[in-house]
Amino acid sequence: MADAVRARLAELRRDLHRHPEPGWCEFRTTARLVEELRAIGVDELAVGADAYDPADRMAVPSDDRLDEWYERALDSGTDPDLLEPLRGGTTGCVAVLDRGEGPTVGLRVDIDGLFIEESDDAAHDPAAEGFRSETGETMHACGHDTHMTWGLATLEAVKDSDFSGRLVVFFQPAEEVSGGGAPMAKSEYAAGIDYFFAVHVGLDHPTGEVVAGIEKPLAMCHIDAEIEGTTAHAGKAPEAGANAIHALGTAIESVYGIPRHSDGMTRVNVGRVEGGTASNVIADEVEAVAEARGETTELMEYAKSELRRRFEKAAELHDCEATVDVVSESPRADSDPELVEAVADAAEGVRGVDRVVPTADFGASEDATFLMERVQRDGGLACYSIVGTDHPTSHHTATFDVDERSLETGVEVLTRSILSVAGVESAPELAGENR
Amino acid sequence: MADAVRARLAELRRDLHRHPEPGWCEFRTTARLVEELRAIGVDELAVGADAYDPADRMAVPSDDRLDEWYERALDSGTDPDLLEPLRGGTTGCVAVLDRGEGPTVGLRVDIDGLFIEESDDAAHDPAAEGFRSETGETMHACGHDTHMTWGLATLEAVKDSDFSGRLVVFFQPAEEVSGGGAPMAKSEYAAGIDYFFAVHVGLDHPTGEVVAGIEKPLAMCHIDAEIEGTTAHAGKAPEAGANAIHALGTAIESVYGIPRHSDGMTRVNVGRVEGGTASNVIADEVEAVAEARGETTELMEYAKSELRRRFEKAAELHDCEATVDVVSESPRADSDPELVEAVADAAEGVRGVDRVVPTADFGASEDATFLMERVQRDGGLACYSIVGTDHPTSHHTATFDVDERSLETGVEVLTRSILSVAGVESAPELAGENR
Amino acid sequence: MADAVRARLAELRRDLHRHPEPGWCEFRTTARLVEELRAIGVDELAVGADAYDPADRMAVPSDDRLDEWYERALDSGTDPDLLEPLRGGTTGCVAVLDRGEGPTVGLRVDIDGLFIEESDDAAHDPAAEGFRSETGETMHACGHDTHMTWGLATLEAVKDSDFSGRLVVFFQPAEEVSGGGAPMAKSEYAAGIDYFFAVHVGLDHPTGEVVAGIEKPLAMCHIDAEIEGTTAHAGKAPEAGANAIHALGTAIESVYGIPRHSDGMTRVNVGRVEGGTASNVIADEVEAVAEARGETTELMEYAKSELRRRFEKAAELHDCEATVDVVSESPRADSDPELVEAVADAAEGVRGVDRVVPTADFGASEDATFLMERVQRDGGLACYSIVGTDHPTSHHTATFDVDERSLETGVEVLTRSILSVAGVESAPELAGENR
Amino acid sequence: MADAVRARLAELRRDLHRHPEPGWCEFRTTARLVEELRAIGVDELAVGADAYDPADRMAVPSDDRLDEWYERALDSGTDPDLLEPLRGGTTGCVAVLDRGEGPTVGLRVDIDGLFIEESDDAAHDPAAEGFRSETGETMHACGHDTHMTWGLATLEAVKDSDFSGRLVVFFQPAEEVSGGGAPMAKSEYAAGIDYFFAVHVGLDHPTGEVVAGIEKPLAMCHIDAEIEGTTAHAGKAPEAGANAIHALGTAIESVYGIPRHSDGMTRVNVGRVEGGTASNVIADEVEAVAEARGETTELMEYAKSELRRRFEKAAELHDCEATVDVVSESPRADSDPELVEAVADAAEGVRGVDRVVPTADFGASEDATFLMERVQRDGGLACYSIVGTDHPTSHHTATFDVDERSLETGVEVLTRSILSVAGVESAPELAGENR
Repeated sequence: MADAVRARLAELRRDLHRHPEPGWCEFRTTARLVEELRAIGVDELAVGADAYDPADRMAVPSDDRLDEWYERALDSGTDPDLLEPLRGGTTGCVAVLDRGEGPTVGLRVDIDGLFIEESDDAAHDPAAEGFRSETGETMHACGHDTHMTWGLATLEAVKDSDFSGRLVVFFQPAEEVSGGGAPMAKSEYAAGIDYFFAVHVGLDHPTGEVVAGIEKPLAMCHIDAEIEGTTAHAGKAPEAGANAIHALGTAIESVYGIPRHSDGMTRVNVGRVEGGTASNVIADEVEAVAEARGETTELMEYAKSELRRRFEKAAELHDCEATVDVVSESPRADSDPELVEAVADAAEGVRGVDRVVPTADFGASEDATFLMERVQRDGGLACYSIVGTDHPTSHHTATFDVDERSLETGVEVLTRSILSVAGVESAPELAGENR
Repeated sequence: MADAVRARLAELRRDLHRHPEPGWCEFRTTARLVEELRAIGVDELAVGADAYDPADRMAVPSDDRLDEWYERALDSGTDPDLLEPLRGGTTGCVAVLDRGEGPTVGLRVDIDGLFIEESDDAAHDPAAEGFRSETGETMHACGHDTHMTWGLATLEAVKDSDFSGRLVVFFQPAEEVSGGGAPMAKSEYAAGIDYFFAVHVGLDHPTGEVVAGIEKPLAMCHIDAEIEGTTAHAGKAPEAGANAIHALGTAIESVYGIPRHSDGMTRVNVGRVEGGTASNVIADEVEAVAEARGETTELMEYAKSELRRRFEKAAELHDCEATVDVVSESPRADSDPELVEAVADAAEGVRGVDRVVPTADFGASEDATFLMERVQRDGGLACYSIVGTDHPTSHHTATFDVDERSLETGVEVLTRSILSVAGVESAPELAGENR
Repeated sequence: MADAVRARLAELRRDLHRHPEPGWCEFRTTARLVEELRAIGVDELAVGADAYDPADRMAVPSDDRLDEWYERALDSGTDPDLLEPLRGGTTGCVAVLDRGEGPTVGLRVDIDGLFIEESDDAAHDPAAEGFRSETGETMHACGHDTHMTWGLATLEAVKDSDFSGRLVVFFQPAEEVSGGGAPMAKSEYAAGIDYFFAVHVGLDHPTGEVVAGIEKPLAMCHIDAEIEGTTAHAGKAPEAGANAIHALGTAIESVYGIPRHSDGMTRVNVGRVEGGTASNVIADEVEAVAEARGETTELMEYAKSELRRRFEKAAELHDCEATVDVVSESPRADSDPELVEAVADAAEGVRGVDRVVPTADFGASEDATFLMERVQRDGGLACYSIVGTDHPTSHHTATFDVDERSLETGVEVLTRSILSVAGVESAPELAGENR
Repeated sequence: MADAVRARLAELRRDLHRHPEPGWCEFRTTARLVEELRAIGVDELAVGADAYDPADRMAVPSDDRLDEWYERALDSGTDPDLLEPLRGGTTGCVAVLDRGEGPTVGLRVDIDGLFIEESDDAAHDPAAEGFRSETGETMHACGHDTHMTWGLATLEAVKDSDFSGRLVVFFQPAEEVSGGGAPMAKSEYAAGIDYFFAVHVGLDHPTGEVVAGIEKPLAMCHIDAEIEGTTAHAGKAPEAGANAIHALGTAIESVYGIPRHSDGMTRVNVGRVEGGTASNVIADEVEAVAEARGETTELMEYAKSELRRRFEKAAELHDCEATVDVVSESPRADSDPELVEAVADAAEGVRGVDRVVPTADFGASEDATFLMERVQRDGGLACYSIVGTDHPTSHHTATFDVDERSLETGVEVLTRSILSVAGVESAPELAGENR
């Protein structure tokens, strides 16, 4: 890869890094992607509601938050015409290359940031190099800036190759809240895919290491629970209340006591609670945010239904009422061995890759599994790969960063994998004359 | 009482009603009181830190809140010279009449408002008559505007009478959070009081009814509890966390299970909880606001120490640590029968009073009990009276209001009671020639 | 009272003390009472099912236990003809004196013992004097042996007096389990009573003290709860069970968290639990024994219904089912002041009585309240008195004992009270010439 | 195998089946084994305390139970001289063949019964055929009668073969309570074993199926927990008690809430609870029986230490004290692949074996793992096999039974496996001329 290309990758990633936006609020981000895709030149470009059915979105934030980030994008000088179709949170896009006969290949990258205030420590490269987040409250602390860069550059590389067939690249919003995988998976663009690739940077794998295909991503669901009771004066009439905080206490105890399942691993957590007003008032409303996971989709469903039941019954026990909403969820889906092998083979030849791990347990959850499951159900093959990077601190921390050498590596691994399944030898310009 | 006087009482009360301020933020309120007291002319006027030791204050809010309300007071056009000594939350004042030989008589009224947004319903008199709260978020929803009016007018009436002795009127901040009674009770102004009166409007007693002396106010304490644990990823390493939300659940269950006590009534409540960040994160910090009450100070202490112990042990059970702070508290103190009788006698002769109830259970808590206890410990007599008022809805609701006929009644009951213990016949001008 | 009479009282009490029988198993006890009553000579003697409707009995033990104690009574040489009508647990009797015109007066004494193994310590009088319980497992540890003696001797004394009217003496079974008060109260013998007396020995009042009429016995109910779930192997299929022990844990936590009530005192307790089989088996059945009390019958009903609800809901939360049976209960009933005064007056004149307390709080529960309530509902007056005794250790302990001087005192207080309401001056022979 | 031999196996198994004895009470059983071993003729026979250090025993029952079963054995006509060395619960034995040069091979069978009353249904073969348990309360409901038969017959077959080396057969007591594995594993007889075999019948594998080597037995521990508090009258002084039942409720809730572990599967269960006396008494003592398991010994240790901590802290929360005793435990140990292969090969040639499964997950726990772990630590190989049998109902049920065709199969599989590792071709007489 030419130094110029390499520099462009870094520049693009750094621009995206400076403007992290939360799930379904990726207004400036999507506009930037559209600009890039137009510059590259694709055969089809579906933005927002043209890419998926907005009704399928999960975990959509409040109108207030959507409006606030839309305004921010406008204020930052983004082209209003590019923003208009995204209003109301229909962010993300799908880009398609149609190159004659051949297989349909899918590639998915995610585009949202996190509510983490980025470190301004001089030891933190983005701070030192001047591309720290400009929002003050959000950060690309999981590497989605890198993922987007990969997506664009891979698309361009495939376009410039002898690829024959159809390449569909999903720029998916709202991965962090498991909100965007489902609508993408239900869209027409997910139909008929023969080979599907998803990819993540880092995840504790160092620069130079590639995991060809991960296994056992956990099925997961996010839940919002609300308990409503009846308020009363805690001193004058304690018996007159239906105590929502007391019900919450019972629910918490009960949720963590959901029995282990003999079919495999499950997880439950209540991660945030808030409710009540003052010490002398019996609370009539509390909210809790919880999740359930499982080694399989069935195990997640078991944990989810028990979680719901326990919130409801705990509320009843205190004469309260619980409303449990599933905000978002993602199934389990595993990488197909044939495709894992193809990626492993492709990665072996890439400059900078010094170790290819065939497969590893994922341990966490990912809503790319919606797309993987769709592809597999339709008879295609799917694979979720990791391109390692030296990251100074964990994902989701204020000092997370990627080693930019991974930008080039990722593009090459993905491009070669795509060309490989399409039966094309890797184009020499990709690998560079100096490999 | 002349119509003019009566109109002035209403006008004063309405002005105070328009500007409700929360505990220790009664900046504009105190300034207004000082103006009024200067106009009346008192022999001694101690404001803020001159009235009590600021270190004795309880339940003082954050500097941010103090600053915010101080700015509001400045912005509303209050005289900066009057505000200056109150900066930092040293609100309230004590006014003294020194009129030669005779007993020292104390009178305490409270001055703070509540965080309730006042109704703008046309059926709500303050809204219809144009004296609804102007702050947008606070309200005199407990009648302290009336109490202050009583305090000022009674002071003036006593001044204009043949009263001989010393009258000390406490304009006490932060009653709603049980924060101001203790510093007032520890001050030099609380020393040597022979007869002490405290008073409340309404409390479900109608216009025309007076309760001479209440019994059994509950001893109470407010508590802030914080539980600190260790965060971890709920999916990847559930065993690595020390789950503060789980500990909170155990604490809630446990606190409500504090055994009843054979010596009498106790109360416990957890009234507000908040903590954690997201569904997939094991929470490392939660906060809870709780209270304990008891029919006696000892019973409150029992409930308080159990509450503390259970928060601490529940935290330990989950490998977390709990910090329990007593934000404020108030003891139990009962009205002395001799003084109750004096008030009952005084009230009997007052125009508009059609029913005098000697005594009634209070059922709630009040930090006037600090002053009552101090006076009684020093050998004086104390009494807490209620002057009834028709109030359309309960105290602490957005449509609470008082019947302004109670303004006059309260002033007369208090003035006559004070004069009575000082051995003075009620001055005819108080009762008005047209009674 | 003659020494001979006094000795006979002691002898009778000691014989009863040697043969304590549990509730509804008072076979030998009832037979002995019938023998004594026949010897005294009464106008009517209703035994077992003739005294009340057996269907009204509460807390009847298992057939096995009934049979076992029936056999014991037979084996101890009790007359089989006397035992026959008691078979199946229809114990106790009602004796009536019909002496012409006059009021109907009721007296109730209880007859059952407790499952406590009596001390054989030499310092324990019944052991030293040779009248320790012969059963090995039960004991008159509450003084019902004394109560029966009082009942018989008072009946005899009234018979020998100028009493005119009707005297109904209830020898009530199963007081300790609140099982016998209800059937007695529903019987025809409880009808038309003008004055009703119940009495207890001791209760921390010393020899020489008489409490004329107690107040505030607590309304109470005993409850048996059973939780049924589904068993499963705890290691192989934890999710397959419906865990009755886990449900019990939730129920226990929940029951103690029943809110205090603003109308007054309540109590709840889970006093015994048992269930499950082995550590590796998810329990499918547990039993709990619980109670609820209240300062009033309404408060007890509140606590009882909450207790029931919480057992049921806690079971549901764990997919189990709870069955909650009210085994027995007793209402609150207070002594009528007029009758209290009559007892106080009667007691004042009795030899050995050096202190008459008009009234005292009872603090515990008693199913004599069923009879008191019945009498009061029908327009009569009721009174529950205490005749003090020096008791070395608490009621319900293995070394409980009564001071036998109280035997005579109790008989005189009761006789004089009965004669008093019947308008008869105390007969001189009762008091004895040597008073 | 000759019909006569086959008949003798069935006769032996049925005799053992008639006399099931619980862990450490296998008095008659051990005596019978000793008789058989003497008849076979072994080179070394260590009984009870000669076979292991009695101090290493776990889960030893009370002296009362030991005495009771010792008396039963005496009463059943067992030779007192054989019983004498077993007095006090030193049951079980180790038999050794010393046959010149060659490897040391170990075989372990377990010998205890269960507290299950055997079915007397005519459809239950042992009942129909007259060899139902004669004890009235215990049963060989797990197949240890078969295991012992295998142990004896295999020993005899090896003795009669060309085997060269040392064969050590462990007749281990108290497997059901994980009590006998540890002392056997610590004994001198467990030293220097090159190849170690353990075996189980059935476990849902049908007649004709052999599992060569099981994997993933769960590490496990049994726990006895006792919570001590302070009793008080639940009505008169609820605050005076330290409520052991309330503490139990908190402990139960807490134990089931032990966090899942990311390293693998854990299990916890509270399987039995008992405590308290009566509904009106605050319980001062409860007992619970619990267990913890883990996919690895480390995971079991995690669950065990959390279980202990939570009992202790829950007790503290209620001012009680918990004592947690580990009654017994067993580690995880897996079959060595080389030995699994040897068993699989040996089984392939056995008459009646129609399916050899190389390996299967065990799912449950076994204290043979102590011996396996010892052998493996010392450099030997270990294998735990299953010989299938059609069993009408599950292990540990009153109608469990084995298909006696498995008797012969088991002996042949074990003998061939032992001879195989000793380098001997299977002796033809073992397989029988009519295979």
